[in-house]
Amino acid sequence: MSKSDFGLIGLAVMGQNLVLNVESRGFRVSVYNRTGSVTEAFLADGAKGRNIEGHADLKAFVESLATPRKIQIMVKAGGAVDAVIEQLLPLIDQGDLIIDGGNSLFTDTQRRSEYLEEKGILFIGAGVSGGEEGALKGPAIMPGGPMDSWKIIEPIFTAISAKVNGEACCRHMGAGGAGHYVKMIHNGIEYGDMQLICEAYNLFKAAGFTAEEQAAIFDEWNRGDLESYLIQITSKIFTIIDEETGEPIVERIMDRAGQKGTGRWTVLSATEMGSVISTINAAVEARILSSWKEDRVEAAPHLQGPTAFQSGLSKEELKQKVHDALFASKIISYAQGMNMLRAASEQYGWGLNMGDIASVWRGGCIIRAQFLNRIKEAYEGNPELKNLMLDDYFKGILNASQANWREVVALAVTNGIPVPAFSASLAYYDSYREERLPANLLQAQRDYFGAHTYERIDKPVGEFFHTEWPEVIE
Amino acid sequence: MSKSDFGLIGLAVMGQNLVLNVESRGFRVSVYNRTGSVTEAFLADGAKGRNIEGHADLKAFVESLATPRKIQIMVKAGGAVDAVIEQLLPLIDQGDLIIDGGNSLFTDTQRRSEYLEEKGILFIGAGVSGGEEGALKGPAIMPGGPMDSWKIIEPIFTAISAKVNGEACCRHMGAGGAGHYVKMIHNGIEYGDMQLICEAYNLFKAAGFTAEEQAAIFDEWNRGDLESYLIQITSKIFTIIDEETGEPIVERIMDRAGQKGTGRWTVLSATEMGSVISTINAAVEARILSSWKEDRVEAAPHLQGPTAFQSGLSKEELKQKVHDALFASKIISYAQGMNMLRAASEQYGWGLNMGDIASVWRGGCIIRAQFLNRIKEAYEGNPELKNLMLDDYFKGILNASQANWREVVALAVTNGIPVPAFSASLAYYDSYREERLPANLLQAQRDYFGAHTYERIDKPVGEFFHTEWPEVIE
Repeated sequence: MSKSDFGLIGLAVMGQNLVLNVESRGFRVSVYNRTGSVTEAFLADGAKGRNIEGHADLKAFVESLATPRKIQIMVKAGGAVDAVIEQLLPLIDQGDLIIDGGNSLFTDTQRRSEYLEEKGILFIGAGVSGGEEGALKGPAIMPGGPMDSWKIIEPIFTAISAKVNGEACCRHMGAGGAGHYVKMIHNGIEYGDMQLICEAYNLFKAAGFTAEEQAAIFDEWNRGDLESYLIQITSKIFTIIDEETGEPIVERIMDRAGQKGTGRWTVLSATEMGSVISTINAAVEARILSSWKEDRVEAAPHLQGPTAFQSGLSKEELKQKVHDALFASKIISYAQGMNMLRAASEQYGWGLNMGDIASVWRGGCIIRAQFLNRIKEAYEGNPELKNLMLDDYFKGILNASQANWREVVALAVTNGIPVPAFSASLAYYDSYREERLPANLLQAQRDYFGAHTYERIDKPVGEFFHTEWPEVIE
Repeated sequence: MSKSDFGLIGLAVMGQNLVLNVESRGFRVSVYNRTGSVTEAFLADGAKGRNIEGHADLKAFVESLATPRKIQIMVKAGGAVDAVIEQLLPLIDQGDLIIDGGNSLFTDTQRRSEYLEEKGILFIGAGVSGGEEGALKGPAIMPGGPMDSWKIIEPIFTAISAKVNGEACCRHMGAGGAGHYVKMIHNGIEYGDMQLICEAYNLFKAAGFTAEEQAAIFDEWNRGDLESYLIQITSKIFTIIDEETGEPIVERIMDRAGQKGTGRWTVLSATEMGSVISTINAAVEARILSSWKEDRVEAAPHLQGPTAFQSGLSKEELKQKVHDALFASKIISYAQGMNMLRAASEQYGWGLNMGDIASVWRGGCIIRAQFLNRIKEAYEGNPELKNLMLDDYFKGILNASQANWREVVALAVTNGIPVPAFSASLAYYDSYREERLPANLLQAQRDYFGAHTYERIDKPVGEFFHTEWPEVIE
């Protein structure tokens, strides 16, 4: 019997679907799962009659693979990945390749890369996005690690990934933890996109739009410049009626969301690097606030706000203005995310290519959108682009949208509807285009209480001044 | 010659001033500095004729102290603290007390506590706030560590600390890193306070208020419910004229601020714990944006906004509304900070007392304010208070201010003036008082693309549902 081209460890749904995807592209696959009964069930069901072999024994699994062996691990991020690697080490040979396809923290991936490199084992940390469906039909794949190692798995990953205009949504991202880092930012951006859609929904709901009307709006938007997977499923969500109550199902779902893992990691990394991702930040905070359901119910009668929603706008007008607010905010969120990627690339020496990243995100993954073609073009046209907002296309959208965007934020604020991500995005826009921010007063305060000194606008940078401020009498 | 009551290592200005403060309360003090010439200069100048002895030799310094020895380290946070501790260990005895009075990261303090406890050395990590002036005349002191260790230094720290209504601004905060943690949050809140004042200033400036008018406004506010050190110095800042240009000095100062250390640490800790400190977060982000001065100057001509400031309000009306926005936002920032302290107290087992913390912050430190008496009262009246917004006094202020607060945020947004901290605060308020946030849509999306399941509002908590969503066709 011939050896397998590819081995996969960890047969949860994502793992199973990736195996089926790889096999469907003409490769022979070996699989292993810690709990043998899962392997048996898979062989008897989804894998039946296909070019897939299962092993109850890890040694036999390893020996079934053609060298250099290509072994992908799909287990829970964290200690389980290290445990599997330790089990593999005595069984594999120098030059074999291990791929971690889970949602690992990039610093873990960096550590594992160095650890395995010392032992002569090749390692790729690959972010895989698209959920169960994507794994089966074509995910977006973000691999990181040495180019030589990548070349070994490139044919298989290219074959199984999503395609957009014939291009594979899979490109080598950079060394070490670059792949998992890009996937982390993808997820952070996903948090932002989802929150922005929720804020649009909350405004429409307050303005009395029915679920049916909202289904139509999001469907219309999905045929315009907001065309994307998340807008599309949002439209469909509004069409589903709960059988039990006869109401739109969305209105029976609990408004409590969690945030852990990649959203939180994104904020931590941004904070450590001094990057600003205020839209994603607001999205993470909004999820936390949503999780305090009991506290909110308790507080609601005590803290006042406006009562009836008033806008003075027709539904058609409101729809257009909210569209502009959502689109402009989305541009800001991506501008922040791309700049964070650039900062990380510099910090970790990854040489990330912004155009490649946007290209990979165009298909297969949760944030896939037409819009990413424009981001790809922007960075291909100018790889040194300092901020996405300054690209001609995006600048044009922002300048055309800013009046409506302001109106929507002012309207929400006036009507007591929280729009943390819309307003954080707008504050970023208005700060970034402000030659003169009020931090001069802040610098005066710091010199006052701590003799921290300050620079002057009319003196060279690097020349520091101190004022003898009047004493404070208390 | 009699032994000294207190020893201090590290004679930068903060250290020197603390020594002078301790001595002035009737204690004999020994000092040591790595660079001996600094000690000599201090002995010949500030310490001259006072009950202070300097040593060029660390062993002689240690031997000059009465046992149990009380040795405070005032060196740069980080490795220098560990280095000094290692130098001291061979020279001191079990039962001696080391105090780290620098701005150490609380996890370092936790680590040092455990390390020294194993060796039988007592350790207190004390946050000290008030800058050079406070160190000399009476700082706020936030000590953390075992109660027994605290009792040894309590008489000296109580004597040197600021006093408010006869109460010392120094109380035992809790075990381990509690003191440095409270100081970290103090600094985070200071970031928030300063940013909120800057946003008020930016609005006034846009509305055409002169420096003189602003000096008068902040002076007036300092005689009302905003009475505080930062408001007071802000008022004075506007009165100072630059000799070179004849203009208010504040307008010649560079609008570029840094953020490192405690502000960043506060955000990191909040993110790790899942606490929401959106006002402080916005303040940290605003500092980063301010530091991108060249980028802003470059972007300014490209990104559009409204031109002339329009409000339809008299200066008197605008002043009052901005007051309300600032005060309400400040309440939110403190509500967030206090809740973060509570979360940390639970996570680390510190048993923090919110009333004590507010009490200590009332004097000596940068955020000292009348307002903190109200926070102290709120937590003394109800130690289990879930959120400061729900205390009767603060609830009353928020309900009375919310209409003006909204108007100010809407006005700023409409006029293109960034108010990230005002709006983040308002979004928190409006989210917290919202029984029904739009996270139900988010949960529907997550169930759609990842089969994450959801709870329902009409079913018991813990019961999970999944919808078979329509397939997406692309």
